[in-house]
Amino acid sequence: MPIDPKSFAPLSPPQRLLMGPGPSLPHPRVLRALGAPTLGHLDPAFLALMDDVQTLLRALFGTRNPLTFAVSGTGSAGMEACLVNALEAGDRVVIAQHGVFGVRMAEIASRLGCDLVKVEVPFGQSIDPERIRTAIAGKPTKLVAAVHAETSTGVRLSIPEIAAVAHEVDALCLIDCVTSLGGIPVEVDAWGVDLAFSATQKCLSCPPGLSPVTLSERAVDALRRRRSKPSSWYFDAGLLLHYWGSDRVYHHTAPINMLYALREALLVLFEEGIERVHARHLLHHRALCAGVIAMGLELAVAEPHRLPQLNPVRVPAGVDEAAVRRALLDQYNLEIGAGLGTLQGKVWRVGLMGHTARRENVVTFLGALEEVLARLGVRIARGQALAAASEVWARPD
Amino acid sequence: MPIDPKSFAPLSPPQRLLMGPGPSLPHPRVLRALGAPTLGHLDPAFLALMDDVQTLLRALFGTRNPLTFAVSGTGSAGMEACLVNALEAGDRVVIAQHGVFGVRMAEIASRLGCDLVKVEVPFGQSIDPERIRTAIAGKPTKLVAAVHAETSTGVRLSIPEIAAVAHEVDALCLIDCVTSLGGIPVEVDAWGVDLAFSATQKCLSCPPGLSPVTLSERAVDALRRRRSKPSSWYFDAGLLLHYWGSDRVYHHTAPINMLYALREALLVLFEEGIERVHARHLLHHRALCAGVIAMGLELAVAEPHRLPQLNPVRVPAGVDEAAVRRALLDQYNLEIGAGLGTLQGKVWRVGLMGHTARRENVVTFLGALEEVLARLGVRIARGQALAAASEVWARPD
Repeated sequence: MPIDPKSFAPLSPPQRLLMGPGPSLPHPRVLRALGAPTLGHLDPAFLALMDDVQTLLRALFGTRNPLTFAVSGTGSAGMEACLVNALEAGDRVVIAQHGVFGVRMAEIASRLGCDLVKVEVPFGQSIDPERIRTAIAGKPTKLVAAVHAETSTGVRLSIPEIAAVAHEVDALCLIDCVTSLGGIPVEVDAWGVDLAFSATQKCLSCPPGLSPVTLSERAVDALRRRRSKPSSWYFDAGLLLHYWGSDRVYHHTAPINMLYALREALLVLFEEGIERVHARHLLHHRALCAGVIAMGLELAVAEPHRLPQLNPVRVPAGVDEAAVRRALLDQYNLEIGAGLGTLQGKVWRVGLMGHTARRENVVTFLGALEEVLARLGVRIARGQALAAASEVWARPD
Repeated sequence: MPIDPKSFAPLSPPQRLLMGPGPSLPHPRVLRALGAPTLGHLDPAFLALMDDVQTLLRALFGTRNPLTFAVSGTGSAGMEACLVNALEAGDRVVIAQHGVFGVRMAEIASRLGCDLVKVEVPFGQSIDPERIRTAIAGKPTKLVAAVHAETSTGVRLSIPEIAAVAHEVDALCLIDCVTSLGGIPVEVDAWGVDLAFSATQKCLSCPPGLSPVTLSERAVDALRRRRSKPSSWYFDAGLLLHYWGSDRVYHHTAPINMLYALREALLVLFEEGIERVHARHLLHHRALCAGVIAMGLELAVAEPHRLPQLNPVRVPAGVDEAAVRRALLDQYNLEIGAGLGTLQGKVWRVGLMGHTARRENVVTFLGALEEVLARLGVRIARGQALAAASEVWARPD
């Protein structure tokens, strides 16, 4: 067990172009913010920074919810935090499952001893709100949960209809915004969402490590009416609101420097302007799709359900998808994602999230993919992709 | 809700001298490491970095445990991760409670529906292992948990005796090493500890955000024999070992840049040498104590139980302790901690953790405290502290 520190190379991670399902490229200002001097978690200067983070997150979530903050963990921690606070053993919960992250929510709810009703569709498809109404079946239901932007499939759901269906039986509505927040509009208050969670490493151009969450007054009321304490102390929103709320009581030591990064990321986003950020994601998504299609490849999601920030490209028959990803990584320092769950081996997931969603990255990706596929002997249309993308940029509408 | 980004000041946290109960001062190399280019969580270059972190953590914990890794959360997340994996409803658990963090372990265990037996002593005292044996009472017990270094009181326990008492009834032994790891010796294997957790922001000179943990083969066997899944999915060690183990299956997106920081912090520590790091903590602790006593103040913990890295100084009668801390912060950029729990208002907690444990910081603290107390009219011996500290440094033994 003795350690020879000289046998460890100095830290020097390669500069990858991150075009997978997240993490995406952090903004350079965000990486710099990470290294600012650490403050104590009760320092007045840090408490002021927490206020800023909350104000900015409320604006981004489209909410006035006082209980809007960052969970000290990654996106899955935010998912668990929302479920563990909203649910207790025996509660009826309806979960829309159209990908890996819906499956994950159902797994967490089942560990909590809930009466779980799943609404399942094959991965890659959308879910009709009518199917959720059928599953609710007019019965008393505590929570209806759905994934707004399924990172595993690239499919978006329309949330207002789902929230309305939930409220018909007075259920809370929980949405997973991990991949949507900052990439496409999220309107928590206007849509009637009661709990939402996201993550820093997708469209916020920030490294992974925090999970922004928001809970409506209805959700907080439900919390107050619980018969039992949440099974988790770390994620107990009733305790966390004393730290993130005005009394500032110590709960746990917040990840100080990650919160610097999140504040900076949110400022970068609002400096560009939220509508412009959404438009940028959409524009480069359209260019990327045009290029991919011009190459003779197919997108795995039907157009009305496509997420701009996550583009699942079908792997052509007979192609070793992992070899393509490895060549892109080794020869281009370019990371794209594999398929997850039932889509494993069938798609590549190409992310255009946050700071990654820029014209130069689309050009690099299209060029690198064309070169690698051609070299591996895959039949594609050569020399077409860039022109097709260029046409989108020339006429952004 | 509209945001005017210009109304937010550029990020510019003051450079504090962090001498509270943590976070401590990160090493400058660690802050720089935080800003290195983000990698994907399945990138081969990142997987190699995870291997390094595990190797270095094993050496620091004094263990060969394969399941040694960093929980994606702060120290309390590591606490909850250990308890939620070790315990299920109905299990008998004995918890030694000599401060706030023992109370916290008991709170988490009670949420898990355990049969909880507390061994309580007043905050600030140590716990005789005989009292733990009495509490176990020869009955089948799943877990015995104790805080090695109580951050709320500055008291250390002797763990080998507690582990031996636990093993008499074949119970697992869990220890909280949040404030001990890197400050005083921790020998998981030699002491017979089955589960241990720590945190990055104390003696590792790294910002908060990760919780190093280790589980013995006995703990992993117990995990395999559980009657039910752990109530937490995020902290489920059976799933996490597939990501941190050789199969590298995606569980959640690791906090990549925080892991850069942890690797760098561990290398900095091993470059200095672990025995030398412990000796440095002890030396500057002795100097600080000598200075504080020369000033006419008292330490709140009896000498054999003192932690070098956390020094509780009794607040003299009639002194407004918060005013002293505020003056140190406002006029010296120097943070010390308040008392917690039953010690609130009675002590200041002065940390000498990791990169904070240096001679210049002891000098600054003694000088600043003397100046502030004298200015506030507190009767202390003036002009003695530095000479007393200096004598310790002159004869380090």
